[in-house]
Amino acid sequence: MKAKLKRFIEEALAEDMGWGDVTTSSIFRGNEEGQAFAVAKADLVAAGLEVFRDVFLCLDEALSVTIRKEDGARVAKGEILAEIEGNLPHILQAERVALNILQRMCGIATETRRYVDAVARTKARILDTRKTLPGFRILDKYAVAVGGGRNHRHGLSDGVLIKDNHIDAAGSIGEAVKRCRQQISHLLKIEVECRNLQEIQEALQAGADVLLLDNMSLEEMSEAVEMVQGRAPLEASGNITIENVREIAEIGVDFISVGSLTHSVRAADISLLVRKNS
Amino acid sequence: MKAKLKRFIEEALAEDMGWGDVTTSSIFRGNEEGQAFAVAKADLVAAGLEVFRDVFLCLDEALSVTIRKEDGARVAKGEILAEIEGNLPHILQAERVALNILQRMCGIATETRRYVDAVARTKARILDTRKTLPGFRILDKYAVAVGGGRNHRHGLSDGVLIKDNHIDAAGSIGEAVKRCRQQISHLLKIEVECRNLQEIQEALQAGADVLLLDNMSLEEMSEAVEMVQGRAPLEASGNITIENVREIAEIGVDFISVGSLTHSVRAADISLLVRKNS
Amino acid sequence: MKAKLKRFIEEALAEDMGWGDVTTSSIFRGNEEGQAFAVAKADLVAAGLEVFRDVFLCLDEALSVTIRKEDGARVAKGEILAEIEGNLPHILQAERVALNILQRMCGIATETRRYVDAVARTKARILDTRKTLPGFRILDKYAVAVGGGRNHRHGLSDGVLIKDNHIDAAGSIGEAVKRCRQQISHLLKIEVECRNLQEIQEALQAGADVLLLDNMSLEEMSEAVEMVQGRAPLEASGNITIENVREIAEIGVDFISVGSLTHSVRAADISLLVRKNS
Amino acid sequence: MKAKLKRFIEEALAEDMGWGDVTTSSIFRGNEEGQAFAVAKADLVAAGLEVFRDVFLCLDEALSVTIRKEDGARVAKGEILAEIEGNLPHILQAERVALNILQRMCGIATETRRYVDAVARTKARILDTRKTLPGFRILDKYAVAVGGGRNHRHGLSDGVLIKDNHIDAAGSIGEAVKRCRQQISHLLKIEVECRNLQEIQEALQAGADVLLLDNMSLEEMSEAVEMVQGRAPLEASGNITIENVREIAEIGVDFISVGSLTHSVRAADISLLVRKNS
Amino acid sequence: MKAKLKRFIEEALAEDMGWGDVTTSSIFRGNEEGQAFAVAKADLVAAGLEVFRDVFLCLDEALSVTIRKEDGARVAKGEILAEIEGNLPHILQAERVALNILQRMCGIATETRRYVDAVARTKARILDTRKTLPGFRILDKYAVAVGGGRNHRHGLSDGVLIKDNHIDAAGSIGEAVKRCRQQISHLLKIEVECRNLQEIQEALQAGADVLLLDNMSLEEMSEAVEMVQGRAPLEASGNITIENVREIAEIGVDFISVGSLTHSVRAADISLLVRKNS
Amino acid sequence: MKAKLKRFIEEALAEDMGWGDVTTSSIFRGNEEGQAFAVAKADLVAAGLEVFRDVFLCLDEALSVTIRKEDGARVAKGEILAEIEGNLPHILQAERVALNILQRMCGIATETRRYVDAVARTKARILDTRKTLPGFRILDKYAVAVGGGRNHRHGLSDGVLIKDNHIDAAGSIGEAVKRCRQQISHLLKIEVECRNLQEIQEALQAGADVLLLDNMSLEEMSEAVEMVQGRAPLEASGNITIENVREIAEIGVDFISVGSLTHSVRAADISLLVRKNS
Repeated sequence: MKAKLKRFIEEALAEDMGWGDVTTSSIFRGNEEGQAFAVAKADLVAAGLEVFRDVFLCLDEALSVTIRKEDGARVAKGEILAEIEGNLPHILQAERVALNILQRMCGIATETRRYVDAVARTKARILDTRKTLPGFRILDKYAVAVGGGRNHRHGLSDGVLIKDNHIDAAGSIGEAVKRCRQQISHLLKIEVECRNLQEIQEALQAGADVLLLDNMSLEEMSEAVEMVQGRAPLEASGNITIENVREIAEIGVDFISVGSLTHSVRAADISLLVRKNS
Repeated sequence: MKAKLKRFIEEALAEDMGWGDVTTSSIFRGNEEGQAFAVAKADLVAAGLEVFRDVFLCLDEALSVTIRKEDGARVAKGEILAEIEGNLPHILQAERVALNILQRMCGIATETRRYVDAVARTKARILDTRKTLPGFRILDKYAVAVGGGRNHRHGLSDGVLIKDNHIDAAGSIGEAVKRCRQQISHLLKIEVECRNLQEIQEALQAGADVLLLDNMSLEEMSEAVEMVQGRAPLEASGNITIENVREIAEIGVDFISVGSLTHSVRAADISLLVRKNS
Repeated sequence: MKAKLKRFIEEALAEDMGWGDVTTSSIFRGNEEGQAFAVAKADLVAAGLEVFRDVFLCLDEALSVTIRKEDGARVAKGEILAEIEGNLPHILQAERVALNILQRMCGIATETRRYVDAVARTKARILDTRKTLPGFRILDKYAVAVGGGRNHRHGLSDGVLIKDNHIDAAGSIGEAVKRCRQQISHLLKIEVECRNLQEIQEALQAGADVLLLDNMSLEEMSEAVEMVQGRAPLEASGNITIENVREIAEIGVDFISVGSLTHSVRAADISLLVRKNS
Repeated sequence: MKAKLKRFIEEALAEDMGWGDVTTSSIFRGNEEGQAFAVAKADLVAAGLEVFRDVFLCLDEALSVTIRKEDGARVAKGEILAEIEGNLPHILQAERVALNILQRMCGIATETRRYVDAVARTKARILDTRKTLPGFRILDKYAVAVGGGRNHRHGLSDGVLIKDNHIDAAGSIGEAVKRCRQQISHLLKIEVECRNLQEIQEALQAGADVLLLDNMSLEEMSEAVEMVQGRAPLEASGNITIENVREIAEIGVDFISVGSLTHSVRAADISLLVRKNS
Repeated sequence: MKAKLKRFIEEALAEDMGWGDVTTSSIFRGNEEGQAFAVAKADLVAAGLEVFRDVFLCLDEALSVTIRKEDGARVAKGEILAEIEGNLPHILQAERVALNILQRMCGIATETRRYVDAVARTKARILDTRKTLPGFRILDKYAVAVGGGRNHRHGLSDGVLIKDNHIDAAGSIGEAVKRCRQQISHLLKIEVECRNLQEIQEALQAGADVLLLDNMSLEEMSEAVEMVQGRAPLEASGNITIENVREIAEIGVDFISVGSLTHSVRAADISLLVRKNS
Repeated sequence: MKAKLKRFIEEALAEDMGWGDVTTSSIFRGNEEGQAFAVAKADLVAAGLEVFRDVFLCLDEALSVTIRKEDGARVAKGEILAEIEGNLPHILQAERVALNILQRMCGIATETRRYVDAVARTKARILDTRKTLPGFRILDKYAVAVGGGRNHRHGLSDGVLIKDNHIDAAGSIGEAVKRCRQQISHLLKIEVECRNLQEIQEALQAGADVLLLDNMSLEEMSEAVEMVQGRAPLEASGNITIENVREIAEIGVDFISVGSLTHSVRAADISLLVRKNS
C-alpha cells in the first residue's frame, strides 16, 4: 500500500510539474531554506495529514514535516495543522498538490462529522458508498472513517450487494441469494437491496445477512424496522441529506449510507503560509 | 494521451473491482444481454461523455455505446445522455466508475456555465486554477472549457506565475521578472501576482505580460483597472463566488479565476437505468 | 482484471523472450504457418484454458485458438485440450509460457478434484489458503474453484481471520472480536483460529462468525463439533493430506482448508504437438 | 535487477493485502513490537533468504532481519533460518508473502540437491529448464544454482536451441545450424536437439556446439556417448526422475536437464514463530 | 521528475543488465572495493554529471560519487569530471550506462557552446528544437541550456507554433492565429512559421508574438529583419551549420534554432579509469 | 517485445505531447484528412520503417501507413520511404516522434553500411558495441544488423567479456576464465580482452573462446593474427574509423567493433511532406 501511495503521489506531482517548474527554477538559486505552515481558515476535522506530509517527502525526503493535529481532531479556524521546514523551492513545488489532497480529505471528514453528530445517540451509523473518485477510494474512505463514519464494502470483491438487476437475472431474491451463498467465500456477508416490504420479506426468508432499504419513504422505513424486528441489520440509502438524516436515524435503522460524503466534496479551507528564512 | 486515459480508466476499474465482482459473477451466467440509459436527473451541462463511453469499452470493447448529447450542451432533467447495449454483467461492472467520472465532469461544466453566464456581456473570461484533483487535471480542465470557461496554465511548466515567495527570493518584482525572461522559452508569458497598486506599478515596469490581482477589494481592483489602462491583461483572483463574480467582471478585468470550479465539485445528478433484454 | 491479466502475460512472455528469440528469428523467414495441439499426457482436470489461449493471442492476436475442453472437465490421457493455428514462429515463441501456466492450473484443479472426491457425500467443503505464489493468487484460486473447491478469503482485506498473535495483542479473544466488529465493514465476517475447546468457547461467546480448528487431533475436532452444535461453521486446518481428509470430513466440520493445493503443485502432464503446414 | 525485485515484492504484497489488512488494523494499536523466527520444520537446503528479508524490508524498512543460514547450506529440522525484529503488525503482514517465496525457493534447492547428490562422482551436471513460473525465472534458477545445479539458458535470447520444428522449417539440421551461425552473436553457442544417432551425426557435421539427447532410452544414450567421443558435450533430457538420474549420469553424458525441479515444486516446510515483546 | 529520472535510469540499467551480469558475478566475490575516475579524453563542456552520479547511486546507493566539474564548465583534455568509490563490481556494472548518458550530454553541451561562441556579441540566441530522442527530451534540452543555448518550447503543449499545414487548415494565417488566441491559455505565445515576406506581413497583422523564418536565404532574412523593424522577435530556422550561423546572426535575428544540436550528437570522448583497492 | 515497443512509442508520444497539442487542437476541427510522404533528402540505407509506421498507428490505429522500402535497402535522394494517409491532425502530431526515431535508425544503418562496404571481400565482420542510448539497445542493434553489421552481445547477460578489471580481481586470465566456465550456462562463450601478445597467450591457454585485441596498433594486431593461427576468433576494438577500418580488416581479424556506429549517430536527412486532402 505504501508503494501504491508513493506512486499516487509521484504521479500527482508529475501531473502538476509537467516537464519542470519554469518560475521557481528561473528565480531561485536552489538552496534557499524556508518554513511553511498549513493553517485552517475555517473550523474543520483533520484528515490526511500523513499523506500531506508524504507529498513533501516524496518531492524531497530532506524536508522536515511536523504534523500538529491528529486525524479526526476537530480543528478551529486559525489553528496550525502542520509545519514544513527545509528547501524553499521544493516546499513551493509540492504545495499545490499537497493542499489539493489535504483539502479534499479534511472536507470529507468535516462533512462526515456533521452527519455523525446529527445522528448522535441513535444506533445509526453513517456509511460511505462506492461514489468516490478514481484513485481516491482508499483516501476517501479513510477520511470518512476519521470523520466518525463507517466504511461500506471497499469495492465489488469484499461484500455482496444484490440489486434489482441481479434479482432480475436470477429470477428471484431467493435464487440470487442462493447462487451467491454457493460461490462466495464463507467470510463474506450478503446484502439485498429491497424496494418494498414484499422484497424485505423475501430477502429475510432467503437468508440475507443485511437489508438495504432503497429510496424508501420514512413511513416505509418505519414499517420495515417493525417488520424485520432485528432479524437483520437495515441500511437506509438514497437521498440522504443533513436535513433528513436524524429523522431517518430515529426510525431505528442500523446504517445510513450517504453518497454525497464523497461524490460532492467541498474542499476544506486551508492555506499554506510560506516564508523564506532570512 | 489516449494511452494515458486508458491506463487511468483501467486503474479506476481495477480499484473498484478488487480481485473480482463477487455478486455478479455468482449470479449471472455471463452471456446475458441488456441495455442501459444514462439519464439526467436535473438540468446540467454535458461533459465527459467520451470518457464515460471509454470506461465501458475499456471493460468490454464489444459493448456498444451511443452518445446522445455533445459535450457543452445544456441538458434538461429527464433527457438521455448516452445509451449502452451489450453484455449485461459488464455494463453493471463498469456502471459505478463510469458514473463517478461523468458526474464530476458534468458537475464542473454545469457550475462553470453558471459563472460564465453570470458574466455575460462583459469582457471577463472565467478561468480555472491548479486546484484540481490528482489524476484529473486534464479532465477537470476539459470540463471547464466545455462549460464555457478558459484554461489557465496546465501546470508549473507552461506559464510563469510569479508569487510573493518568488518576489521575496529574487529581491524585487523587477529582478524576478528579469530572471524568468532570461531562462524561459520565448513562447511563454510572465504573470505577476500583485497585492497592491505599488506592486502593479513595479510589475508593469518590469515588463510583466499579465497581472494577477490577488485578493483585492472591488475598490482596489477598480483602481488597478484605471491605472493599468490596458497595458497588460488583468486577472482577478481570490474569494470569487457566484454572488460577486458579476460585480468583479463589470470592473473591467480580463480574467477571473475560480478555484471552487474544481476544488469543490457537486456531482451532477445522473442515473443509469439498466434493463435485461428479455 | 483483463488489463491486469494482459500485463501478467506480457511480462511472462518478456521474461522468457529476453531481448529476442535468437533461434527462431535466425531460422524462420517469419511467415510460416502451422498448427499445434495441446494434448493431455495423463488424466487431468482442465483449468486455465482461456489464459492459455490469451498467451498466444497476446503474442500474436492473429493466431486462432480453439478451446476443446471446458474448465473443470475431466480429461483423459490423449485427449486434446486446445488447438492453435497460424504463424508458426509465434506459436513456438508462446509455447513454453502458455504451457507453464496451463500445467500449473490443471495441476491444481486435478489435485483439488482428488480432495473433493475424497470427501464426497459429507458436508465438508475443500478450501484453499493464501499459500499461493506471487502473481498467481487469482489464477490459483480460480483453479481450485474449477476443481470443485471453495475459495477462502482472497487476501487480508476481504475477511477477518483472528490468529494467536492477534489475540495476544488484544488481550483476549473477546476483545479481539470486539475491536474488529467496530472497525470492519458490515459485510465481512469474523473467523477465529482456536487451538482448544476453551478458545472455541470464548470465540463463540465473543460472537465469532466462523471457527478455525487449528492443527487439532481427530478427537479434539470431534469434541469441537459436538460442543459447537452448529452455532458456527467450523473449518479444519493444518496437516491435511489426501490420506486423512475423509476421516476429518466425516467428523462433521463444514470446511477443510488444504495449503498443499497451491503451495506444492505438481504440473499436469501436457504437451504441445506442433507441425508446420506443408 | 534490484528495482525489478522490489517491484516483484511490492506487487506480491499488494496482491495479498488488497486494500488493507482488516484484521490487524482493527486489533493492533500500530506500535507493538515483536520478534519472529523462521524455523525449518524438516531438513532442507536454504535458498532465497535475501529475498525473504527483502519482503519484510519492503513492507517496513525499519524492521531488522538477520539471516542465520547461507543460501546453499543444508539445514536440519528445527534450525532457525532467519530472525526478524520490529513492528509486530508489519511482521504479520509480510509473513505469508515472505514464506510463500522462501518455501518455494528452499523447495527447489532441496530437490536439486537430491539430484546433484544422486549423480555425485560422475561428470554429469544437473541442469534446469525454462519450465519455471512467470515472474520466477530468476528466482527459480537461482535456487537451482544454490542447490548445486547449473543453469541452462535463461530464455530465448541467451543461447540457441534448435528443436524439431526449427529443423523442419530450415529443411535440415545443417541448414538450421548455418542460419543461426550467420545471425547470432559470436558469443553464443548452438545446441541441437537430436532424436536418434542419425541426427547426432548430422548435428556434429553441421558444427553444433552442444547436442541434446531427446527422450532417448539408456541404450540409445550409450550409443550416442560412444559415437560422439567427446567431440561435443551431451545433454540428456526428458523423463528424468530421481530414480533414473544416476543410471543416466553413469552413461557419461555431460548434462542432465530436469524439468520437475521447477515445474513441480514441493514447498519446503518452514514456519514463522512470532511473539510479541512484553 | 526525480521519480521519472529514477525510472529512466532503472530501465537503462535493466536494459544493459538483462537477467544478470554473467562475467562479473562469476569472477568477483562481491565485496571488492575500488575507485573510478571519469576523465575527459578531449576538450569538452561538462553536462549531465548529476545524472551520471545518479546512475551509480541507482545501482548501489552506498557508492560514493564526487562531482569534480560544474555543468557548463569548459573541461580540458585530461581533467577529471567525477570520481566514484565503493563496491567494485557495482561500479563496473553501472559504467557503460553512466558513460552512454554522460557522453551524449557533454557532446550536446560542447557542440552548443561552439554555436553560442560563434554568435558571440550578436543579439542572436541559439535555440534547440524538438528533434531530440525519445526519453531524452529533458536531458537533451538541459544539455543545450548548460552549453549556453536557450530552450525552444518543450513539446506541443507549452507554446504555439503555427506551420504551413495549420495555416492551410485554417484558411489563412489570420484565421489560424485567431483560433489559437481564443483557445489557448493567456500565458502562451503564438509563433508563426513564415516562408516569405508576404506571410511575415500577414503574421504581423494577425498579431503573432514571434515569427519563424523558415529556410530563408540570407537575403530574404535581411529583408525580413528590415521589414519587421523589431515589432516581433524573429527566429531563423533550417539548414543552420557552424559555418553559416555567424552570418545569420549578424543579420539581426533574435533566435537561431539548430536541429543538429540534438539530432546528430557526437559523443564526447570520456573514459572511466577503474582500479581495485589493494 | 511488441508490448515493450508499444510502451516505448507511447512514452515517446506522451513526452512530445505534454498535456496536449495546443496548436493543432485550436486550429483543426478534428476530422480533416490528409496524406504524408516520408522522403529521403539524401542517399541512405533504410532502417526502422516498421517502427516509424507503429508510431502513427499507436497514435491513431485508423491511419493507413504503407512502407515503400525494405529495411536494409539503399535509398536514393528523393525516393519515398513510406506514405501515410488518414486523419490529418493525427499525422501532424505523430510526425516529429516518428521522424526522430526513423532518422536515427537510418543514420545508423547508413553509417554501418559504409563500414561494411569498406571491408568488403575481407573476412572481417563489423560489430556494434554496448555504446547505445538508453531505451534504444534493441533498435540501435537492429539498425546495425540491417546495415550489414553483426551484433555483439546484447548486454551483460548474453556473453562473457573478461576485461582488465575482471582479470585483476581474479588474479590471472586463467583464473578468470575458469571461474566463468564453472558458473555460466553451457551455451555462452567467453571472450577475453587482451592488451598484448602475452595476454593473448594466456587467454588461449585458459581456453578462451574469443580474443579481443584492445587498442592495439596495426603491428601488434598482425603479430596477434600470426600467433593465434586461427585457434580463436579475433576481435579488433578501439579507435576504429572509416579511414583505418579496411587496413585493420586486411590484417585478418575476424571481427571489428565500432562504437561510433551507435554513440555518435548523424541523423539521416528525411522529411515528411504533408498535405491536406481537398
